[in-house]
Amino acid sequence: MSEGGFRVGLLGNGTVGAAFAALLPAHADRIQRITGLRPELAGILTRSTGSFEQLLEHSDLIVELIGGIDPARDYLLRSMRAGRHIVTANKQLLSHHGEELWEEARLQGVQLRFEGAVAGVVPVIRVLQESLAGATIDRVHGIVNGTTNFILTEMARTGATFNAALAEAQRFGYAEADPSEDVDGRDAAAKMAILARLAFDTPVHIDQVRYEGIEHIQPDDLEYARELGLGLKLIGTAERIGEALSVRVHPAFLYPGHPLASVGGPFNAVTVESEAITEITMSGPGAGGPQTATAVLGDVISAMIPPASTPPTMKVLEIVHDVVSAFYLHVEVADEPGVLAQVAQVLAQQEVSVKSVVQKGLGDQARLVMVVHPVLESRFTAAMELIAGLEILRAPPRAIRVLEEEFG
Amino acid sequence: MSEGGFRVGLLGNGTVGAAFAALLPAHADRIQRITGLRPELAGILTRSTGSFEQLLEHSDLIVELIGGIDPARDYLLRSMRAGRHIVTANKQLLSHHGEELWEEARLQGVQLRFEGAVAGVVPVIRVLQESLAGATIDRVHGIVNGTTNFILTEMARTGATFNAALAEAQRFGYAEADPSEDVDGRDAAAKMAILARLAFDTPVHIDQVRYEGIEHIQPDDLEYARELGLGLKLIGTAERIGEALSVRVHPAFLYPGHPLASVGGPFNAVTVESEAITEITMSGPGAGGPQTATAVLGDVISAMIPPASTPPTMKVLEIVHDVVSAFYLHVEVADEPGVLAQVAQVLAQQEVSVKSVVQKGLGDQARLVMVVHPVLESRFTAAMELIAGLEILRAPPRAIRVLEEEFG
Repeated sequence: MSEGGFRVGLLGNGTVGAAFAALLPAHADRIQRITGLRPELAGILTRSTGSFEQLLEHSDLIVELIGGIDPARDYLLRSMRAGRHIVTANKQLLSHHGEELWEEARLQGVQLRFEGAVAGVVPVIRVLQESLAGATIDRVHGIVNGTTNFILTEMARTGATFNAALAEAQRFGYAEADPSEDVDGRDAAAKMAILARLAFDTPVHIDQVRYEGIEHIQPDDLEYARELGLGLKLIGTAERIGEALSVRVHPAFLYPGHPLASVGGPFNAVTVESEAITEITMSGPGAGGPQTATAVLGDVISAMIPPASTPPTMKVLEIVHDVVSAFYLHVEVADEPGVLAQVAQVLAQQEVSVKSVVQKGLGDQARLVMVVHPVLESRFTAAMELIAGLEILRAPPRAIRVLEEEFG
Repeated sequence: MSEGGFRVGLLGNGTVGAAFAALLPAHADRIQRITGLRPELAGILTRSTGSFEQLLEHSDLIVELIGGIDPARDYLLRSMRAGRHIVTANKQLLSHHGEELWEEARLQGVQLRFEGAVAGVVPVIRVLQESLAGATIDRVHGIVNGTTNFILTEMARTGATFNAALAEAQRFGYAEADPSEDVDGRDAAAKMAILARLAFDTPVHIDQVRYEGIEHIQPDDLEYARELGLGLKLIGTAERIGEALSVRVHPAFLYPGHPLASVGGPFNAVTVESEAITEITMSGPGAGGPQTATAVLGDVISAMIPPASTPPTMKVLEIVHDVVSAFYLHVEVADEPGVLAQVAQVLAQQEVSVKSVVQKGLGDQARLVMVVHPVLESRFTAAMELIAGLEILRAPPRAIRVLEEEFG
């Protein structure tokens, strides 16, 4: 290791590789504060440029984002034999040759991390390897391909055909020019092979995973299913069945109460079930350059530091208390003309803007219930105090904050 | 460290402590396989029995589940000064004296892990400290108190008052005899102080967290809000506002599309937002003896092993392919009497049981759409083949799997 520095050799300069190469220097200061070492990019090797031997010699850790089986497999084995830690996001390689690579890592006493290989920055690898290392896992299942989830979400939302929704996914960058590995289920199968291996400590090769894709889904399947209250997802499952294991990928309908039913667009989500803990569900963006690069960088930092060290505080941020919030407002009022106008006038004076109103009941039961748009809390409190002083009130006004629907 | 063993000294023998003491020997074989070391319980210290000095002398790692500030703080400082790693689930201690403890851990070069302190086995601490160490975080928010989430879920579901729902929570073991720290928001405030410290690298003391509880929530607030499409949760938020920070806990209404809206009962969920990754959401059981003990054991294992090592495979599990599944079945049929009867008869012969049916259209548009109960796939496939041979069919039948609503 060079004096005070930590040299990262990068294999591959595609979407994720380029995002990683930009992310590393941008976070170098913070990483140095956490780890005591300043990370630096030792060099970038692509299929056409650079010498692997030279890069290896000048690197403390190798990040493999070149993809595919060859020459990635050879590079990783040689890196580990030279005592280098490895971070990779290569699901194809791990689902074909994982046992060989993990065995080499144990033999050489180096780290082999691969959070970015499954569900991007959603920390499912770390959770299976570390958080739940002390739990017996019964089932892992979820949505592990963002392309197909985007396509199915679009088909359900707009009634589009598979081909039209695929074209839309390509337009947004959620599907590649050749989308076949995504839409036929093979990409998800590779990821489920890796998750099954970690969850059940048993060797799982991608060829043992049965998979089906979504190319055959018809718009009217989605339409009729909606009448039955069902939504469609491409689901990967790895589960213990007696003393055996089932690992599979196929489209499946979900009832609306299912935790995976609300996972829309290009998002991924994985649920891990274990008798002792019931279940943990994790969701987030499953792919994309910056997201996968963030997962890769998290692995690099973990390889650099004693685990779970809490860095010293950076600077003391001021803690503010008066923040912006939307509110629900409940007012019990006299049943007489002009009540709404009086309340609305007070709100308008304080620049509190009303989003929706329910006016209920007659006589002693008369109530105004409304939701107001986001406003600085001090301003809303001032309006509440003025409303509390109105003669038309029969009880003190009540307010509860409303979270805006920021997530789509 | 004793020859081939790893001695764990346990402070505290309450609900979580007793669950941990049972979990450790139950998983000793697997932990030995992963780490190469066999974990053993060196002893248990309670407030009334045992000698701390003796336990410390015979332990490689100290698990602190005794709770409260004193004597836990003194025990942890002395353990770290003696070079011992620490695992704790003590949110009160960390939200009051975290800086002192983290500084001591850095000084002594020991690990101080505390996944169990926030949201039980939901891996939010690990994600903030490791997965997202390379991301700039904008906001952390979520449901971090299971007692109040259970109470609010009950109030919304049954129309019960706060006091009636609290009594129900106590009956199920989701609320303590003295529930005040949970229902007044203070427990959630301690957890948000810890999360804010990790997310923003700034010191946050529990006294800087503004909090409100749920004691004042009226059943009719929930009822009127339902007409506006809103559900109520106790939400903790830590967010960057310009160059400052807001950390707060209060009840808030959510629209149904919000990812936290579907988190019911005693579950916890935390969303971490960052521009580079959009967001990650994690959910699961937030408390309970076995769940928190599983989080503690995950921390103990992490302290024992080189991080992210993938253990050798245990034994080769058979991979099965014929599994049980429910199905959606779509059949285009001739518009004539007896069509449903013919299809139903084939299904009955194969012991496939129908759950719901939609019969649609006339003439060329006539269709049968149904959902069948879970059945072995080979049996359903056989039924499909028989149906495909019926003369009443106008197109090949189509089938898609249906996930049963196993999660409530």
